[in-house]
Amino acid sequence: MDAVNNSKKSLAVCLLSGGLDSTTALYSAIHEGFHPLALTIDYGQLHKREIDSAKKICGHLKIEHEILSINLPWGSSSLVDPKIPLPENRSLNDLAKEIPNTYVPARNTIFLSFAASMAEANQAQAIFIGANALDYSGYPDCRPEYLHSFEELIKQGTKLGAEGKKIEIKAPLIHLTKSQIIKLALKLGAPLEWTWSCYKGGEYPCKVCDSCLLRQKGFEEAGVQDPALQGAQYQRK
Amino acid sequence: MDAVNNSKKSLAVCLLSGGLDSTTALYSAIHEGFHPLALTIDYGQLHKREIDSAKKICGHLKIEHEILSINLPWGSSSLVDPKIPLPENRSLNDLAKEIPNTYVPARNTIFLSFAASMAEANQAQAIFIGANALDYSGYPDCRPEYLHSFEELIKQGTKLGAEGKKIEIKAPLIHLTKSQIIKLALKLGAPLEWTWSCYKGGEYPCKVCDSCLLRQKGFEEAGVQDPALQGAQYQRK
Repeated sequence: MDAVNNSKKSLAVCLLSGGLDSTTALYSAIHEGFHPLALTIDYGQLHKREIDSAKKICGHLKIEHEILSINLPWGSSSLVDPKIPLPENRSLNDLAKEIPNTYVPARNTIFLSFAASMAEANQAQAIFIGANALDYSGYPDCRPEYLHSFEELIKQGTKLGAEGKKIEIKAPLIHLTKSQIIKLALKLGAPLEWTWSCYKGGEYPCKVCDSCLLRQKGFEEAGVQDPALQGAQYQRK
Repeated sequence: MDAVNNSKKSLAVCLLSGGLDSTTALYSAIHEGFHPLALTIDYGQLHKREIDSAKKICGHLKIEHEILSINLPWGSSSLVDPKIPLPENRSLNDLAKEIPNTYVPARNTIFLSFAASMAEANQAQAIFIGANALDYSGYPDCRPEYLHSFEELIKQGTKLGAEGKKIEIKAPLIHLTKSQIIKLALKLGAPLEWTWSCYKGGEYPCKVCDSCLLRQKGFEEAGVQDPALQGAQYQRK
């Protein structure tokens, strides 16, 4: 997929972290005919390099891209507090059984509230989010029930809702396994080689955090090699 | 009410703009026996001086106070975009009939999502917000239905909710008129002389914006003088 032709399409705010899932969700939005407005939130994540991935992808697509910085001084997650050790080499069967310390309190609620504000201000009709509830880390704010609650909240709490209009929360990956997401991404031409999933902020994916493990499992099950591991930039020296 | 004694009380995150309503809500939280954690959001409002009011009030109470800065680059409100003229001298009967251009898209949703994150990280049991749905500007995100939706969202989208716990959204002013709010504030000893309501960022209250008009009506109906207009700092020269 090349640069997006934006004339007269419905707008969609696309939450884009720069990872595999949100990039696939962005490409799904474009595939469904939306003109995407990408939104990336720098929330103090230690793996800030995912933001460079997001920039690269938006630059390639030549789409509007807002990057907002927020501060969550109360920490409480290994994604933002280097003193809390990231889980390593967890059994994939256990991932969804408990909510790990990578959970950031109300993170998706904060992300979606900014997306709702941006969507309302731009008269966008949808918000795309890469949430999925199968091969995931058990986060409560990735489940369909949660996303439905947020859609209801927008109806109740916006001028647009008061006028009888709605903003749809679209989570095209919600019922897909990681390997199905990867197959979809490849079908849509998403540049997976630029996406960044690893929770650690290192130069190369660590291959032991939950996010690396899920990504690795997905590529194995899809029967394809992870293009991010093939480029020289990601090879361990 | 003097400095708060915080030992062994339930925690409550209190959204505090520095205005009359949120200050009264904060004092209600303390009166109800909560240990308050105040949260103020600098969202680019032109009337930034309300943040100085919030600081002064928290300093007086000697309570924890987080001030977070966020950016809403999509503007769309006369509260953040100086190019959009603020409504002036509107009829008080018309205020709630339409949503004015002071509406900031999804503002309370953004505020409450940060409050929910702070509350979950601190194991707080409640969030206090100064929303009221009688003498107000017709904002959809000040209505009880909206606040109930947000409470439901927290249940669905937090680790705490997944564990069967809840964070209550408390809006002690929701069904009060402005004069009732003022009487409550005076009863609780809230320092109304330090609160700032005017939407304009000037040195003195403008007395023509919706917020000044509602405040003025409230004090008139309560039969008391606005202490903020009595101190030398607010007197027109």
